[in-house]
Amino acid sequence: MGIILALDFGGTKLTAGVVDTAVHHTHDLTWQAHKRVYSPADGHAQVDLATMTALGRELLAGERATAVGVSFGGPADYHTGLVRLSHHVVGWEETPLQQRLEGIFAAPVRIDNDANVAALGEWRFGAGQGVADLLYITVSTGVGGGWIVGGRPYRGHNGMAGEIGHTIVDPAGPICLCGKQGCVERLASGPYMAADLADALGMPGHEIAGHDVAEMAAWGDEVALAILQRGAWALGVGIGNAANLMNPQRVILGGGVTKSGTGWWEKVRQTARQTALPQVQFDIVPAALADDAPLWGAVALMETE
Amino acid sequence: MGIILALDFGGTKLTAGVVDTAVHHTHDLTWQAHKRVYSPADGHAQVDLATMTALGRELLAGERATAVGVSFGGPADYHTGLVRLSHHVVGWEETPLQQRLEGIFAAPVRIDNDANVAALGEWRFGAGQGVADLLYITVSTGVGGGWIVGGRPYRGHNGMAGEIGHTIVDPAGPICLCGKQGCVERLASGPYMAADLADALGMPGHEIAGHDVAEMAAWGDEVALAILQRGAWALGVGIGNAANLMNPQRVILGGGVTKSGTGWWEKVRQTARQTALPQVQFDIVPAALADDAPLWGAVALMETE
Repeated sequence: MGIILALDFGGTKLTAGVVDTAVHHTHDLTWQAHKRVYSPADGHAQVDLATMTALGRELLAGERATAVGVSFGGPADYHTGLVRLSHHVVGWEETPLQQRLEGIFAAPVRIDNDANVAALGEWRFGAGQGVADLLYITVSTGVGGGWIVGGRPYRGHNGMAGEIGHTIVDPAGPICLCGKQGCVERLASGPYMAADLADALGMPGHEIAGHDVAEMAAWGDEVALAILQRGAWALGVGIGNAANLMNPQRVILGGGVTKSGTGWWEKVRQTARQTALPQVQFDIVPAALADDAPLWGAVALMETE
Repeated sequence: MGIILALDFGGTKLTAGVVDTAVHHTHDLTWQAHKRVYSPADGHAQVDLATMTALGRELLAGERATAVGVSFGGPADYHTGLVRLSHHVVGWEETPLQQRLEGIFAAPVRIDNDANVAALGEWRFGAGQGVADLLYITVSTGVGGGWIVGGRPYRGHNGMAGEIGHTIVDPAGPICLCGKQGCVERLASGPYMAADLADALGMPGHEIAGHDVAEMAAWGDEVALAILQRGAWALGVGIGNAANLMNPQRVILGGGVTKSGTGWWEKVRQTARQTALPQVQFDIVPAALADDAPLWGAVALMETE
């Protein structure tokens, strides 16, 4: 394939990497160059695009990219190459990102949302190698998912497959921004667990972060522990339901919340196993590529299709 | 392909059909011969198999089948050709049905469970023609599902995909035979709704059937109506969750409970639409092939793969 430039528009982080597929074997790729910068809190799509362009050119160091693969942290359409919007950065509405980057780098470009691309990365280079049917779930600021079905990325009828975060697991649960009660993201994502902890402690609006919940739970705080366990339970029901529906061989979990300790993992696994029928076989494993899963997926996006 | 013999082991009903693909166009197949018999209430696998063999031979009328496609009403494995068991008829445990029928009819045989086969039938000849990604759901004695993904039957890692009936939609709901609380089948299937109505009327164990619930609801009985609406709600949440996860283009509903009237359909559609994210596009339509969906699917099983 040649030199692939991989770009990850991660909302708060912009990351680029370059691999030379002519030098490395495809099952043993390493970054020839790799760099991450943080975008400003009051950022704008145009600034992010300019920053990423400079980053890409810096890493290419005068060479020409054969292809450019892109992960976008928000609704982005693989088939049209359009970014629908970003939940973190203004100015992205209906941006033809694929077309723009093709103009800038004079090479074929493919884009997709971060969950789909991370699923592809883990499947090709990480914890899902050799697994024909898998569900990747990122449990972080939000809860998103991506599918590999029959050894191919699966995006659904209009590119919306993988929204496990907005499946309902408790119709009597708290209300999510999406308008529904008790969806997985409302119960299991970092910011929502932090907000629930702040509320429970009688200090709503205070600066409690997602990882504080896990830390306080580890220190033995019972309120924090209950919130963390409820999140793990919700995710477990969501995974068990997905297993009953699709029977993937493997479910891969990535994102900051998965660093919440063994108690969290046990609760997720136990609940998923109890929710799925006994005959439904699957396992649940941690992501192998950590923060670089979308970037590796962006490489795979250009390799495989 | 020639003459295809299709067999549907439906638990209480045994149906066979013969089509000649050399005579008819593949998009316009009709039965050359078709017959349904009812198996005795105290039946046995050996009796069913003998009855079906006689039925097949009668319909073939001395001709030789080029291939035999089989729908089995219970856990059956497409890849191994084994029937795991029947929930309705004793003696089916670990029966090598594919192998047996290949011996009897001296032709290649494929078997699969009824939900997968009905999905294939509706996709090939019914309400799912031209739809690459669809979920077929039968809402009847149980609630089962089958997938077409990317224009192919999808069975999952160990053949268990499609178990939407045992996804949880209300963790505080009543207990199902599967051991979980508030799964779709516990709330939406005919026998469970009938049992709930008998309980609510203070006559547990009485002979109330699934269709009685819909009839009493139509006559204005508020208890029956509430039970029917709760079933439709549960199915709607299950469908909405499946839409968020997989974003199929179409969901096709078949089975006796789908004859419960427009109020039931409205509640299912409305709940599914509210459960899915607004961007997730899909529609919900009635099955077109009615009781013959598995039989047509058995034809398609031999045609397509």
